[in-house]
Amino acid sequence: MTRLETVGEIEELARAQADRPASLIAQFGADEPLPLDAGVSLSPFQIAYMTYGELNADKSNAVLICHALTGDQHAASANPVTGKPGWWSLMVGPGRPIDTERYFVICPNVLGGCMGTTGPASIDPATGNPYGLDLPVITVRDMVQAQAMLIDRLGIDQVLCVIGGSMGGMQVLQWAASYPERVFAAVPIACAARHSSQNIAFHEVGRQAVMADPNWLGGKYAELGGSPRKGLAVARMAAHITYLSDEALHRKFGRQLQDRAKLAFGFDADFQVESYLRHQGMTFVDRFDANAYLYMTRAMDYFDLAKDYDGVLANAFAGTKTRFCIVSFTSDWLFPTSENRTIVHALNAAAANVSFVEIETDRGHDSFLLDEPEMFETVAGFLSAAARRKGIT
Amino acid sequence: MTRLETVGEIEELARAQADRPASLIAQFGADEPLPLDAGVSLSPFQIAYMTYGELNADKSNAVLICHALTGDQHAASANPVTGKPGWWSLMVGPGRPIDTERYFVICPNVLGGCMGTTGPASIDPATGNPYGLDLPVITVRDMVQAQAMLIDRLGIDQVLCVIGGSMGGMQVLQWAASYPERVFAAVPIACAARHSSQNIAFHEVGRQAVMADPNWLGGKYAELGGSPRKGLAVARMAAHITYLSDEALHRKFGRQLQDRAKLAFGFDADFQVESYLRHQGMTFVDRFDANAYLYMTRAMDYFDLAKDYDGVLANAFAGTKTRFCIVSFTSDWLFPTSENRTIVHALNAAAANVSFVEIETDRGHDSFLLDEPEMFETVAGFLSAAARRKGIT
Repeated sequence: MTRLETVGEIEELARAQADRPASLIAQFGADEPLPLDAGVSLSPFQIAYMTYGELNADKSNAVLICHALTGDQHAASANPVTGKPGWWSLMVGPGRPIDTERYFVICPNVLGGCMGTTGPASIDPATGNPYGLDLPVITVRDMVQAQAMLIDRLGIDQVLCVIGGSMGGMQVLQWAASYPERVFAAVPIACAARHSSQNIAFHEVGRQAVMADPNWLGGKYAELGGSPRKGLAVARMAAHITYLSDEALHRKFGRQLQDRAKLAFGFDADFQVESYLRHQGMTFVDRFDANAYLYMTRAMDYFDLAKDYDGVLANAFAGTKTRFCIVSFTSDWLFPTSENRTIVHALNAAAANVSFVEIETDRGHDSFLLDEPEMFETVAGFLSAAARRKGIT
Repeated sequence: MTRLETVGEIEELARAQADRPASLIAQFGADEPLPLDAGVSLSPFQIAYMTYGELNADKSNAVLICHALTGDQHAASANPVTGKPGWWSLMVGPGRPIDTERYFVICPNVLGGCMGTTGPASIDPATGNPYGLDLPVITVRDMVQAQAMLIDRLGIDQVLCVIGGSMGGMQVLQWAASYPERVFAAVPIACAARHSSQNIAFHEVGRQAVMADPNWLGGKYAELGGSPRKGLAVARMAAHITYLSDEALHRKFGRQLQDRAKLAFGFDADFQVESYLRHQGMTFVDRFDANAYLYMTRAMDYFDLAKDYDGVLANAFAGTKTRFCIVSFTSDWLFPTSENRTIVHALNAAAANVSFVEIETDRGHDSFLLDEPEMFETVAGFLSAAARRKGIT
């Protein structure tokens, strides 16, 4: 195919996922359109997802995992593009906190993503070309609505737990607000009930970096050939800094030089932290679609849960019976504990059943993806208690 | 000139400043080369500078202002490119904290800058074209050494005070370390004795954004025509976020929409903070040279004062008689109070005369440029006491 001529092998693998993912697929035809917040309906569309473990007889042991900005459905199994272990392998698996010998785990790729659920890299059946920016802007509520249709398709009335970090946590909150009867327990990690001004600002920098790349071609790069690799790499580099912490960067890299004994007096990567960031940028563009990056960041920017409830966050959870566990990290400056505490206060005001754990770590926002024993213990304990409460043995 | 064909009027004005600045100029010929840290000498070179007030008879009332990353010599008078008031008009002038009726103020453009002191946008006499990346990488110590030659040229043995914020504060520290006998008092504001890993990372993102722009042309854009405007705008946007604070952005913009009643479901600037950032990016590229941005950020990254003193910062100030006043801001996360406190501790260890003021504000790193009464009172009082001590009436 001509449009793949200028891309590398991994990038080609990634692009193939957009329509033909190496995972399960649920297709929704003309009879099941998805009404979007943008005011139009999406139809047809598909959801790519993975499952781990077995659904029990009364379909009561499902755990739905919502992934973050650049995550995907491969939470606990090797990623078909990169070959790396699933992004939450430490959390999900036999004997892990989300124990696949006990729970039936479902992890869908979000709407607007690029790993098989309909997104800007998917082929628009109306034109035969990738949607690009012709796909309506997607919101977190749209993502959750699509996931609810998947859960319907699987014949599950109520999930035992919805869990996720960052943008995944936003989806968890939206699930609890939109479908309180369908969520027995909810674990939003390192997130916020609305995206802050500073976070919108960082996302806007990323989008501008992508759109400044002449190879972006107004979003039609996949159709016309090429890819805005440099712009997307810059976007990823800027974002990546916000996922870490000053302390973690200092501990990992300090001012150590990269493969040299002294400063080179040039503009190559002198410092290890520069080399590390460049690597993060370069590997990201192989696996992620630039337009999907625009859609994901926009969805997060638009997220403001209280807005749909007269501006009062507690109203989003009025009368809820869902059991909540809110988790934050001390060094997360993208979604600081204060934002998570706002959620706790709203849940308290709604007289909800809520636990709150702030975990001490210097690893920043990305802590939810890392080996954080206190997080694992918290999730394992909370989930196990919820399962017992729901009568799952 | 062909190379200006594609640039706008303000940008043309800015480019003209590189060699023919609307300010005073000190030229240093073949007999006065500047030995650079990069291991080569720069010759000839020039320093563009502004002065305010009158030098007294015994030349004892000079205050040297060192500017920050994107500052210039126009501290207290209208900028010839933008027409805006000088960047430190609130601090410097008749009756201001740095009172030009009492002090003789000198503000030079730094080496490697783009407002008339030799930098990458200056014409290389060896080729007749702008230096571009042929200029050696410049360090903060190089900047200070050049300033010392300017002070010599003005016949001043010792300045009453060296003062500056951010990269300006780094120069102040370098002055105090390199020329202790020539600095009676020193006021480094909102800075650090070495650039942190996180700060290097943010700078690297900015540089990558510039270099990713195809119009950068390996740094030869000024020679070949055009300008990496989009890349430089992205760099400025990312940097600008770090100059503010989460609180300040929330207070100024929150999630308010720009000229619209509801979300547009697109990728234009929906939110005021996006519109503001885009404006910051666009106005910056009119006045600033992209290569100079690379040089300035690199100079800050390379700054590590202790390194030249066996890794012990206190050694940089051993035996100093200079009076120090260290100023930091509570919401500055680029150069947090902890970094400034490290300087205070080193000065204490060197038994130096040091005051330390942490100012409560939510306006972030940029506070040193803003209307911060406590900063003005601190500087006015400290400077006045230093002047009395030095016998200036």
